[in-house]
Amino acid sequence: MDLPPLKFDERGLLPAVVQDVHTHQVLMVAYMNAEALKLTLETGEAHFWSRSRRELWHKGATSGNIQKVVEIRVDCDSDTLLLLVEPAGPACHTGNVSCFYRRYPSLEFAPWPPV
Amino acid sequence: MDLPPLKFDERGLLPAVVQDVHTHQVLMVAYMNAEALKLTLETGEAHFWSRSRRELWHKGATSGNIQKVVEIRVDCDSDTLLLLVEPAGPACHTGNVSCFYRRYPSLEFAPWPPV
Repeated sequence: MDLPPLKFDERGLLPAVVQDVHTHQVLMVAYMNAEALKLTLETGEAHFWSRSRRELWHKGATSGNIQKVVEIRVDCDSDTLLLLVEPAGPACHTGNVSCFYRRYPSLEFAPWPPV
Repeated sequence: MDLPPLKFDERGLLPAVVQDVHTHQVLMVAYMNAEALKLTLETGEAHFWSRSRRELWHKGATSGNIQKVVEIRVDCDSDTLLLLVEPAGPACHTGNVSCFYRRYPSLEFAPWPPV
């Protein structure tokens, strides 16, 4: 594939915001390298680079909670992506729909929608 | 203020996703250091750390397009924030409401809501 250039950081990564295309809830932020982006475009399912495990990460491969990518957007600086997805289940390893399930600084549970 | 701990990266920064609290559109991603977060909490207006200018950045101080922060959320890893805001105007320096105004890889204009 011949793709428009992106500004990967010094680690070869881009942050990717993952948003539910229907509820519009922000589910998580993860990081992609070029290979993860290529796999995401090829398969239509979200792939990331796990910084902690230092390996490609097919989201949901273990949990079943894959994220079908409906659309990818890029920001004005071409250094951040926004993935609009249909998730098969909770994005968070805690079982919460979104990783952003706590308010700061109170750490109270934060429902969606916010207001 | 005594705040719950956050995992700032090796640069002392956290990514912050900015989302319109009413339309739920993701507007931008920027970075906060501890001082930017403190100023945001104290003033109720979004402050960031500009990586390019290497200075604190009161969003909208020049353009007038400030972002009133209604709620801050933190993710499960405590290394990313989500700001739910009421923006006074476009978030993007291009005049677009959101910095994520292009699809990838087509680079076509991407309206909100997505579907």
